Formats: sequence, C-alpha cells, structure tokens
Amino acid sequence: MTTTPDPTHDVIVIGGGPVGENAAQYAIAGSDRTAALVEAELVGGECSYWACMPSKALLVPPAVRSLAQHMPGLGPQAPLDVDAVLARRDSFTSGWDDSGQVEWAEGVGIEVVRGRGRLTGERTVVVGDRTLVARHAVVLATGSTPTAPPIDGLADAMPWGSRDATAMHEVPGSILVVGGGVVACEAATWLAALGARVTLAARGGLLARLEPEAAEAVEAGLREAGVDVRLHADVQRVRRHAPEATGTGHVHGGAVTTTIDQAELVTDEILVATGRRPATDDLGLDAVGLDRIVVDGRQRVAGAEGWLYATGDVAGRWQLTHMGKHEARIAGEVIGRVADGGRADEVVGVDDDPLTQVVFTDPEVAAVGLTQAEAEERGIRVERVAIDLAVAGTSLARDDAGGRVVVVVDADRDVLVGATLVGHGVAELLHAATVAVAAQVPTARLWHAVPSYPTASEIWLRVVEDLRRQRRER
Amino acid sequence: MTTTPDPTHDVIVIGGGPVGENAAQYAIAGSDRTAALVEAELVGGECSYWACMPSKALLVPPAVRSLAQHMPGLGPQAPLDVDAVLARRDSFTSGWDDSGQVEWAEGVGIEVVRGRGRLTGERTVVVGDRTLVARHAVVLATGSTPTAPPIDGLADAMPWGSRDATAMHEVPGSILVVGGGVVACEAATWLAALGARVTLAARGGLLARLEPEAAEAVEAGLREAGVDVRLHADVQRVRRHAPEATGTGHVHGGAVTTTIDQAELVTDEILVATGRRPATDDLGLDAVGLDRIVVDGRQRVAGAEGWLYATGDVAGRWQLTHMGKHEARIAGEVIGRVADGGRADEVVGVDDDPLTQVVFTDPEVAAVGLTQAEAEERGIRVERVAIDLAVAGTSLARDDAGGRVVVVVDADRDVLVGATLVGHGVAELLHAATVAVAAQVPTARLWHAVPSYPTASEIWLRVVEDLRRQRRER
Repeated sequence: MTTTPDPTHDVIVIGGGPVGENAAQYAIAGSDRTAALVEAELVGGECSYWACMPSKALLVPPAVRSLAQHMPGLGPQAPLDVDAVLARRDSFTSGWDDSGQVEWAEGVGIEVVRGRGRLTGERTVVVGDRTLVARHAVVLATGSTPTAPPIDGLADAMPWGSRDATAMHEVPGSILVVGGGVVACEAATWLAALGARVTLAARGGLLARLEPEAAEAVEAGLREAGVDVRLHADVQRVRRHAPEATGTGHVHGGAVTTTIDQAELVTDEILVATGRRPATDDLGLDAVGLDRIVVDGRQRVAGAEGWLYATGDVAGRWQLTHMGKHEARIAGEVIGRVADGGRADEVVGVDDDPLTQVVFTDPEVAAVGLTQAEAEERGIRVERVAIDLAVAGTSLARDDAGGRVVVVVDADRDVLVGATLVGHGVAELLHAATVAVAAQVPTARLWHAVPSYPTASEIWLRVVEDLRRQRRER
Repeated sequence: MTTTPDPTHDVIVIGGGPVGENAAQYAIAGSDRTAALVEAELVGGECSYWACMPSKALLVPPAVRSLAQHMPGLGPQAPLDVDAVLARRDSFTSGWDDSGQVEWAEGVGIEVVRGRGRLTGERTVVVGDRTLVARHAVVLATGSTPTAPPIDGLADAMPWGSRDATAMHEVPGSILVVGGGVVACEAATWLAALGARVTLAARGGLLARLEPEAAEAVEAGLREAGVDVRLHADVQRVRRHAPEATGTGHVHGGAVTTTIDQAELVTDEILVATGRRPATDDLGLDAVGLDRIVVDGRQRVAGAEGWLYATGDVAGRWQLTHMGKHEARIAGEVIGRVADGGRADEVVGVDDDPLTQVVFTDPEVAAVGLTQAEAEERGIRVERVAIDLAVAGTSLARDDAGGRVVVVVDADRDVLVGATLVGHGVAELLHAATVAVAAQVPTARLWHAVPSYPTASEIWLRVVEDLRRQRRER
C-alpha cells in the first residue's frame, strides 16, 4: 500500500439504514468527531421503507378490526377500507422520501454521502468519484439481500420480493407466497386480511427456528384467515403468462402458473420470501484482504480489528433491525472509546445478549433467547414450563382470547434462558422476559415481581408458579 | 385461658376473597394439611364480584371502541351497546354466583365455611354456632370497607358505593362522583363512556400517590370524555329528594342536590369513592389481646407471632388485590414451612418488594415502586428520566398515540427504584420495569435487554438511552 491520504472523516459508515445510522450516531456522540454515512438508496433503509414499518402499518388495522369484532358492545365491523390502510402505510414510509432522515443525520453532525460505498484499502472508501478516508474506523452496515431458490422459470416470472408486498398499491386478486419464515407468514397475513386469495408454499414447516408451538398456532391462524397453507411443498416450475391490460388501466404481468407437488396453481402474482444473505457484493472486502465477515462481540471484523467493524445483517449474527441496532450502538461506543484513548474491552459486548423477536401474525408470536432444542444443544439442563396464555387479563381483553407460553429455564442456575409466547397482543408481554433473560434474574426473585391485576402480564406469575409446582411434585 | 380444644383444621383463613383463597391454597400446597375458608358473602370476594373484574369488564369495551375509532381503515364506530357491555360484565362476575369458586376451593382441599368469622382466643375462630380451632395458624384476610366523609346529609342521601357503580343495571342520566383516587377516576371513566353526565369532585387533586404526570393526564382524559372535574372542591351538603317513579317502571330515589363550593348541583345519583379502611370490626382482635394489626415482612401479626397472620387490605400495607395475593402466597408458604418443622425466615419476605399498580382510565396509568418524591424522602440520590411515550410501536398502534414515562433511578446503585407510564395500553408495558425494580437490575445491564422492533416496549431502551445521555452531558 502507498502512503495513506489524509482522513476526510473520523468514522465512515457504509449503509444508511437504521443500523448504520445508530453506528454513526454512537461513534460520534458527546464528541466533536465527524462521520460520513454512505447510502445508495434511501437513508433509513430497508426497515423504514420496505420492511418493518410498512409491514406493521399494514398489519395493525386488520388486527384492531379483529379485536373490535370480538368485543361485545361494539357494533358489527365494516370490511376494511383497503385504500385507507394503504394510505396509512404511505404515511409511515413518508411516501418513500428520506428527507426527514437526512435532516436528522445532518442535525446530529453526520454527513450523508449518496452512492454505493466500496472499500479500496485500509480505512478507505470510494463512493462514485469521491474517496473517503477514516481517521478511526469504517463500519459496514449494508444489510442483506433477498435470495431466490433455484426454481425453474422463477426469475423470468417477474416474482414479487418482500419490497413489492410491502409497497403494493393494489391488492392482487390471488397470490402464491413461497417461503415459511417470518416475512412469508406476515405477508400472507396482511395479503389475506386485505382481500387477496393467498396460497403459502413452504419447503419445510413454518417459523422453523422458533418453538413448535409458534408454527402450530400461526399455521392455524393462516388457515382460519383463508390461506391455503402447503407445508413440505416442492415448488417445481413457474411460468408467467403474457401481460394483459386490466380494467383499471394498469398493465399487469399475466397470470402465473406454478407447479407445486406435480399440481398446477394459477395466481395473479407470486411472492418469493425464502431468506436473505449478507450484502457483501461489490463491498471491496478483497481489497482489504478479507474473503468474508466474521465479527467478535464488539463487532470488530476478524483480520481488520484495528479499524473495521460490521453491524446488522451484513455481520451475519442476526437478521433483525433491533438486534442490528444493538450491535451498532455497541460498535459505535467501542469506536468512541478507542478514539478517546480507551480500550475496546471497557465496553460490554453483545456476545451473550438474547435475541428477541416478534412475528406480527394473527396470533402473534414473541420470543426471546433460546428454544428448548437450542438450550439442550448447548448442554443446558432444561426445565420447561408450557402453559396456556389464560389469565383474567387475557379474557378481559377479548372474548376469543387464547394462546400458549413456553419457557426454558436453566435448572442449574435457576434462570430463564428462553421464552416464547403465542397469542393476541403478546408483542408487549415479551420485554419482561427479555429483562429476566438478559439480566439472568433467578426465578426465585421473579416470584417477587408482582404483575398488576388484571393484566395479561400476570402470565409471568403463572409461569413461576408452574415451575415451583413442578419442583414440588418432583 | 382454659384448655385449648382439639384442632378442627390445620389452617383457618377468615375472609374468602382472592387473598384468603391464596393464603389457604399456599398453606396446604403439596401437603395433606386441611384448611377452612370462612366467608360471610361470596367466595371470590370484592375483587371478583364488585371491584377488579366488573370494573375492568366495563372499561375494556369503551377502550377498544376508542382504539377502533382512531384506526384508519375501520369504519365509523357505532355508539356502545350498553346492554351488551353490562351483559359482558355479568358474565365476568358469574352473575354474582360463587359456586365456581367454591368448587375450586373444595377441589384443592379447602373447606368453605359460610358466615362471619371472629377470633375468640388463640387459634380459635367462631362462625355462627361453630367453633373452629387451628392446629397451626389463623390468617386474617377480611379486606377493607369503604369510608364515607363526614358530609352533612350524605348518609341519608342513599349514596352509591363502588359496588353500586360496578354492579349497576342501568346507567344513571347524571351522577356526582365524590373522590379523586383510583376508584373515583375509573368509575367516572366508565360512567361517562356508558353515557352518564358525570361530575367528579375531589377534596384534593387526582391520584395523589402517583407521579404528578399521572394526575395531569387522567384529568385531561376525563375532561375530554365530558366529565366536569372539580379539584380541591369542598362538598358541603347533600340532600336526596323524594323518590319518584321513572318511565321504565323502576323506582329511583329522587334527584340529589349537592352543595359544592357554595353552588348547588343536581344529579340523579351520587357515588362516594373516598377510600377504604382495614375491615377489623367485630373480628375479635381484643379477644387475643390486640388493638390493631401490624405485620412483619412474613405477614406475622405483632403480638401473636406464633400463629396469627394477616394478608391483603386488612394487613394495612397495600390496598391492591395482586399485592394482597402476593402477601398471601408468602404467608401461606411461611405457614407451610413452619408446620413442616422449618423456620419462617427460610422464606423470603415481602418487605422490599415494589408495589405495582395500573389505573384503567383513558389514558391508562401504570406504576411500580417509588415516585421521585418517595425516593427522595428515603434519602435516595435520584436520577430522573422523563420522556414522551413516543416510539415507532406506539405510533403504529394508534393514530392518537401519546403519553409519558417517568423513571426514578437510585444513582448510587444504578438501579431503577420506580417507574410510571401514562398513555394508551401502558398496562402491559409495566412488567418489564417491575422485573427490573424487583431484581435490582443495573441500568448498564438493561442496555443489553433489546426490545423487539417495532413494539411499544422500545420505550425502555429510550429510557436507558436518555439516562446515559444525561450522564454524558453532566
């Protein structure tokens, strides 16, 4: 390498999604350091415009309608006004305009650099015709890109990706969702709620990484919503027919014929939601002597520890916005600490922190930490509590209440290592378990955290009660 | 005292509300001990028939309607069907029939004894013409009784108590609610939601024991619901007019004229909700040499430690069902441990456990632990976080989202000692804070409990973030 040019910024972040924003913000917080945030699309990223926000904006109105429908005293509910729901979605994506986010970034002292960033050497990032040089650190936060399964004819059939499903301006009459993960299950939920005839074909089961109770409940919920769920399905061939004009003046692709388990299915659209991989293409890893990204608990990239960090989907640990932002906060803090002359290990890393996740299907699934299977794989001696989500607070909340809670306890340490809830409104019940898992609170102490009556949170009392009963009866 | 007669039961519990039920259940759990549960009214108590359950059954439908009204995509909501709401309330009180609860008690091996229990000597309880004698312990769980302020003419005016408000079969056209505590605020909320013209007159402010933010928000909510809120009001005189027949064939008391701050107000009914005191009347305390009930952290009554316990409202520590049930579980466990030859101090007491409370007004209030004022009174060096309840999860949940979070941190120990949330749906956000307070989790560790995006629970991340910002800027 020749002589390094003068730094242009203290910190350069490639990728301006929420993860990159957090990394930049935390790396310069409380200092006069400068940061560049390099983004090729919209600042705010996948989450703000094509994933978390629009998907939840589409899912909430049907969920509220379902709640209202099951509450005596309220009148019969009108069918959903799809245009109003789509308009609400548009308001949450700011009409795909990132000026608000850019304003925020500039307000906290981050320079937004438009374009695709690529490493060309240590601390050096090229964006178009600009060369940026970092005094302290470069953070990779480019996220992930969808993968498509090798199905005959799929690429030529102009399939929808998750972006098409969240950004849709018209609900298709019928659609085949290929996939069984979170994105597939959530998309099937809102598409069905907004009036599409939905078929879901998954190569395996649903939500494979969660407790089996989650898959069972979500499958039942999808079927109840009219979704034709086909599990362990073999999608063999896809053909898009010739385009045709519709009555509304739009030009659609023609219908799609998909061969699943030897039988043909004709739908208006096909959505592929079969997974994502770290977005490392054309990132210039080879220019700094790396062939892949491996991070430690402080998000330092192996082989380039002194200056290169990776956070979020591209780092490969998790694929969830909030977990990526957590990594970004830690990485940003480490960068700041080191820049101030401190040591990276003064910042507690993310290694042992529990993964949290909510699937906004109907019913919802909320999970933290390890499943029973994962805990046993790690050699943990497991105690398991599995009880119905049935307390006064859940019955009061809606007449069609129901659900299930599964908790995994490390018997030797008497602490929760995982919890999964399935049911209406469980999203907000999770964080109590997250605190317990993250802080390794003994269940003997949880016994003294008294939920208010009559809330649904009382289920956490029932969990400890059941654990104590099991121990007494053993 | 003469010779003690033979024991009839191992444990006798006076008062068959949820607190008494828990005490009896836990005292005999996993053993062949016997218990008697003495109840003069309905087994299941105030909470099941006249307080928590019916009040929440009345409050939930209006809350859901309000949520639906603020959600784009749902049609305009019809006015509440009051009869359907009252019918739902009836189903939650089992039509004031306690046979289900009696069946439960008998199923777990508890004998239900109908009548008023009175201590007549050590371990001895008289119920009508029966004398019960406890081998191990007597537990007092008689709850509390409403108090009425000394207002001229009030007693003669046949005022409603909280039971009349929860059990009402017809919504009064207009009603004056006297009081500013939780019961008064909740009753004003459901009475207004169900169509009554409500005036609320409080001697002081609202919800005096909570953070001031709670009172402000609840006052604003009541006013928005059309309640005429009069604070620091002097209710001077009450007069009930002659009864009159109504169009529906019912005979009501005539209208009530109340003089408040020298001005006259005429309403159909007046509800007194000004507080409750421990129900010790005719309990026979004097027969065992006591003039009042003082308990320790294991609910043992001072002066009768060997055998007498008190739990719930009558014990005087808290006036909340779930906290009373917590005391009852601890007392029951202590009784069982001692009966099995162990020591009471092998069971961790309730002394330091944080109080939790939810006020189901619109907006809701949820609180745990100490207010800032209480913490400062105890000499704690306080750090305070006060931020808007505004994260993606709250905006997605409803278009009229809003609210406030106040957190009190013990700066020397870096742990939460109190938290108060005000806003829609905060009831289920509380338990995460309750776990943190009860387990004294350092805020440095809470930083690693990552709420799932986009949930309202993300507010707990914002709280720690704000605390860290304050510390950085100090």
